[in-house]
Amino acid sequence: MIVVLKQGASEQQREDLIEWIKSLGLDVHLSIGKMQTVLGLIGDTGSIDTELIEGLAIVESVMRVTEQFKKANRKFHSDDSVFEISGAGGSGPKKIGDGNFMMIAGPCSVESEEQICAIAESVKASGAQMLRGGAYKPRTSPYDFQGMRDEGIGLLLKAKKLTGLPIVTEIMDLSHLEHFCEVDVIQVGARNMQNMELLKQLGRTNKPILLKRGLSSTLKELLLSAEYIMAGGNEQVILCERGIRTFETATRNTCDIGAVPVLKELSHLPVIVDPSHACGIARYVRPLTLAAVAAGADGIIVEVHNNPEKAMCDGPQSLKPEEFAELVKAVERVRAAVNS
Amino acid sequence: MIVVLKQGASEQQREDLIEWIKSLGLDVHLSIGKMQTVLGLIGDTGSIDTELIEGLAIVESVMRVTEQFKKANRKFHSDDSVFEISGAGGSGPKKIGDGNFMMIAGPCSVESEEQICAIAESVKASGAQMLRGGAYKPRTSPYDFQGMRDEGIGLLLKAKKLTGLPIVTEIMDLSHLEHFCEVDVIQVGARNMQNMELLKQLGRTNKPILLKRGLSSTLKELLLSAEYIMAGGNEQVILCERGIRTFETATRNTCDIGAVPVLKELSHLPVIVDPSHACGIARYVRPLTLAAVAAGADGIIVEVHNNPEKAMCDGPQSLKPEEFAELVKAVERVRAAVNS
Amino acid sequence: MIVVLKQGASEQQREDLIEWIKSLGLDVHLSIGKMQTVLGLIGDTGSIDTELIEGLAIVESVMRVTEQFKKANRKFHSDDSVFEISGAGGSGPKKIGDGNFMMIAGPCSVESEEQICAIAESVKASGAQMLRGGAYKPRTSPYDFQGMRDEGIGLLLKAKKLTGLPIVTEIMDLSHLEHFCEVDVIQVGARNMQNMELLKQLGRTNKPILLKRGLSSTLKELLLSAEYIMAGGNEQVILCERGIRTFETATRNTCDIGAVPVLKELSHLPVIVDPSHACGIARYVRPLTLAAVAAGADGIIVEVHNNPEKAMCDGPQSLKPEEFAELVKAVERVRAAVNS
Amino acid sequence: MIVVLKQGASEQQREDLIEWIKSLGLDVHLSIGKMQTVLGLIGDTGSIDTELIEGLAIVESVMRVTEQFKKANRKFHSDDSVFEISGAGGSGPKKIGDGNFMMIAGPCSVESEEQICAIAESVKASGAQMLRGGAYKPRTSPYDFQGMRDEGIGLLLKAKKLTGLPIVTEIMDLSHLEHFCEVDVIQVGARNMQNMELLKQLGRTNKPILLKRGLSSTLKELLLSAEYIMAGGNEQVILCERGIRTFETATRNTCDIGAVPVLKELSHLPVIVDPSHACGIARYVRPLTLAAVAAGADGIIVEVHNNPEKAMCDGPQSLKPEEFAELVKAVERVRAAVNS
Repeated sequence: MIVVLKQGASEQQREDLIEWIKSLGLDVHLSIGKMQTVLGLIGDTGSIDTELIEGLAIVESVMRVTEQFKKANRKFHSDDSVFEISGAGGSGPKKIGDGNFMMIAGPCSVESEEQICAIAESVKASGAQMLRGGAYKPRTSPYDFQGMRDEGIGLLLKAKKLTGLPIVTEIMDLSHLEHFCEVDVIQVGARNMQNMELLKQLGRTNKPILLKRGLSSTLKELLLSAEYIMAGGNEQVILCERGIRTFETATRNTCDIGAVPVLKELSHLPVIVDPSHACGIARYVRPLTLAAVAAGADGIIVEVHNNPEKAMCDGPQSLKPEEFAELVKAVERVRAAVNS
Repeated sequence: MIVVLKQGASEQQREDLIEWIKSLGLDVHLSIGKMQTVLGLIGDTGSIDTELIEGLAIVESVMRVTEQFKKANRKFHSDDSVFEISGAGGSGPKKIGDGNFMMIAGPCSVESEEQICAIAESVKASGAQMLRGGAYKPRTSPYDFQGMRDEGIGLLLKAKKLTGLPIVTEIMDLSHLEHFCEVDVIQVGARNMQNMELLKQLGRTNKPILLKRGLSSTLKELLLSAEYIMAGGNEQVILCERGIRTFETATRNTCDIGAVPVLKELSHLPVIVDPSHACGIARYVRPLTLAAVAAGADGIIVEVHNNPEKAMCDGPQSLKPEEFAELVKAVERVRAAVNS
Repeated sequence: MIVVLKQGASEQQREDLIEWIKSLGLDVHLSIGKMQTVLGLIGDTGSIDTELIEGLAIVESVMRVTEQFKKANRKFHSDDSVFEISGAGGSGPKKIGDGNFMMIAGPCSVESEEQICAIAESVKASGAQMLRGGAYKPRTSPYDFQGMRDEGIGLLLKAKKLTGLPIVTEIMDLSHLEHFCEVDVIQVGARNMQNMELLKQLGRTNKPILLKRGLSSTLKELLLSAEYIMAGGNEQVILCERGIRTFETATRNTCDIGAVPVLKELSHLPVIVDPSHACGIARYVRPLTLAAVAAGADGIIVEVHNNPEKAMCDGPQSLKPEEFAELVKAVERVRAAVNS
Repeated sequence: MIVVLKQGASEQQREDLIEWIKSLGLDVHLSIGKMQTVLGLIGDTGSIDTELIEGLAIVESVMRVTEQFKKANRKFHSDDSVFEISGAGGSGPKKIGDGNFMMIAGPCSVESEEQICAIAESVKASGAQMLRGGAYKPRTSPYDFQGMRDEGIGLLLKAKKLTGLPIVTEIMDLSHLEHFCEVDVIQVGARNMQNMELLKQLGRTNKPILLKRGLSSTLKELLLSAEYIMAGGNEQVILCERGIRTFETATRNTCDIGAVPVLKELSHLPVIVDPSHACGIARYVRPLTLAAVAAGADGIIVEVHNNPEKAMCDGPQSLKPEEFAELVKAVERVRAAVNS
């Protein structure tokens, strides 16, 4: 950490500051220039609050040189991480990361056994490697449908048994964790990206965690939330870009495709994109999926419905099964084009 | 809810849509114009997802006419709500709302009995009506100090016993609720504004809840989160503007002072402002506090420290005790100026 | 335009409003429902200010049904527009739009004849169809290099003569227009997207205009700025997404890749992407370029430098010539993969 | 400027970089630590592009220590600037800055002699010190009313002659400058804050310039735009906060009241606030005005209309004359309360 002092700082103030920094267990490298005095803090500065230093009367500015995230940091783990997703059925383990691409698909919400099983069979046939489906639903309004909750997880497990597809579904509170024993990948939604107590507890499980970026979170904050999980011992975190909030209203959120190369540079963890929630409109899901793949994503999580006869009440962001089948083929072509 | 159909929509499509809307228990008022066909949905549209309707192929646009929040809505509760805060000591109950202004002050974190008691006595002497202090701390990095947790609550209760000031402190997870029995007001932080399971459970308590706006939440989303609490039976919600995330970097966040008149128009709940967290820099706390008061806030929650001898390591956003004492007087003058 | 009245509006107020709307030359279709009264405004509502109506005491909300942009609107021009770029040299006209993809490349700033000519030859050899280069430079600080201005345009013309590549460069003020006589495509930068007087005047030229989205402009505002140019008679506008300002700091701006399918749905105009300025970091240019192509962009404008011996002082967002040559090939592969 | 090198940088690369920096006329102070190597750049670094340095392969990060704005910087001009506004009539010069508060009021657009003169007389009677009114109107859509342009300025001058109030109105293009000879203060609107050619030319006039912050501009960018004007010789710049674009939709923009203390700390220039455009809704103008005053603004610019009989078609953000008169009194009370 580099600390630049104000020109007016007295020698006494400077010495007081240095003494205090040393009391935190750090060394200080002092460099007195004509124009400014610079302190280089040496040691484990990860737990020092830069804002605290910046707020001192004699400090002009502060620059963190080493990132606060360590286990998620590519600097200390140069190879891409690969996680095995141990699904049921005879299909054997799937992998994500380091060239292993994963297509995850399923409905917005689990609604019935018939629905989730039909979609599971459909997306499997089209080439999906994992089934998604909301059981616990985070809804902005208390009057909206809150999901089938633990019953929904039971239906996902039936679909898993039927198709052999591993399942991913969202957890909203620690008290529900007992219902996730047979879930293959646990999702943390955007609203809970900084629910630190939840992250800590998931760090004590041994399941891969699909961690979605918060609506207004920076990429470094996303990595620090991953660090919360990893610091607990569970290093299987899949990062997910799902759109950030901006002033643009033509799409629900703005899909930050640039997050893919940035995250892959900063971290060794797999990075996937959720174009369905990012844009909120089914007809933009295909171009955004292909864009994410072209930018190097390790996977896509996408909403697919199965109600041709009741298309009216299906989600605005869900693809039809035939659109999804087409998309899987286009994804493969784009991956080949990018990597050849 | 008003639904405008696309010009190309066929009569059959239109009738299918109307039939489906009626199946949801709503009436439809059809208005066929030269340029466009408009459906007026009549009944309880609160639980209908506008995005779902907007995503239909034949729909041009949708406009919600009635807000989704009801218990928090001023339309159905025209008088300002007033909550009594039952503090300990001989000082009797305090009130907030409808002209009752509350000044809440205290340190960022509880650090020791000596610290919290000294600050409590100091801010009480300066005119604070409630004591704040972080026990459970939501930190972006897992390597940062996570607060004294339940032990910190114990120290807050000692300070309460000493001074008679009621206390407010943040809850981060439902599993900690048992430690909040003697806490007077429970705070929900910005990161947990959409932790719906937590909100639901707090709706079953009988304590006032201080609900902070999320970093990128709209005011309607804040009101819907309040509605989660109120729908559970606990109607004592205090709304708190604490800065939103923008591209401006001179202050930590951007304090949306306009939120005060907007929230007070839309809702009957008390509205307070947290200038310390909004700007992150102590020397801007005074002007933002006075601005919030001039805009009509029902209270202020502000950070105050007490370490004149160790000013170096105090938070960058905390006022000194003498600055706070001065501020309380200026707040009173501005309130008088605005209301006279 | 749909206007919903407040429940408390009196019959007299309603009639006054209707009379006033009619005085603007519009018809009103009145629909009185149990829950709300709705006015449908019929006629050319394009010039009515929705905010003005929304501000009326008796109005609950307003929804514009028809977009304000007309000449840029795909509703009235369903086929993709195609523009011919009449370059010099023997290479004949180039096209952009409706499947004609254009790769535009060149340095950030024109610095010398040697530099611009060398880059022009290099990018032509790699497959670029147009040369870019800044002559008039919009700089945030008055103390930064302001470009070679008209002299820079002279050097671009030399490079054009040498290579036959048409040239695009930015105009910053109407008074410079005389220097753009031989420029093939005139660029309007992000900072000038709402310089309405400039747009009006460019609407009277007969050159294609490359219009960049403002840093915080919505896509509808971008289309209205295109409309300013088109309303003057010049319908050759190329829309350019170049990143929007968000709170994310890992990249200079956030490249809104979703803007490509949205703009192509709303408008018939060609849409290109500038990944160099959007992210500001050369190593992210390739993934963002491929993402933009996968999302359906009609072209890319990218920065390329040519100083292997002085790589140190080249722009952080510029590709090396060999990187650009590689990129052109990858773009072709991705285009084939998406369209096959 | 502080430059931190990556750990992997070779001695040769470091020496190349230092040599290049010295070739720009700067000195370098080298500090080689265990963890990192730091270069301190000494000299006039104002014209160095930090992004250029940051983009170098061997650079970890860069921190600017001295701001790029100089003439606008309080560091070099510790006293508040005061400008005299030389209005016509017998009322003598008015001042703004350093405790001289200025209330500026008038209609959104000049519509007729009768209108502007009536409003001018009304706001003068209520205590305004300057008259505002749009002649050239920057409109998002080309089909909206573009203002009365030079004819509008003529009417403003009539109102000035009648009342003695100095006038402020917006310039949109350099070619209109000739019409501004008798205008007292020239306004640069938010859309033109980075129209650098316009700023440069206004720097050669001798009139005070009211410079509005762009919709997504940072405060440092606003100060750099002021610097463009001041670098040309005209140091009379009045800074104006008028709301920034965020995701919040309850108000048109978000009024950044915190900008007032930040700007007043960074610069000696007067700072005013435009609550009418910031929020877009008349009933929020009063609380935001009082908030801005409480935060220390040197003036307010506010919209007032005068059409009691046609209130329907008045702007949604304009106060009625009697509301304005009330507001002026409240402003005085709040100023007294803050400063006593």
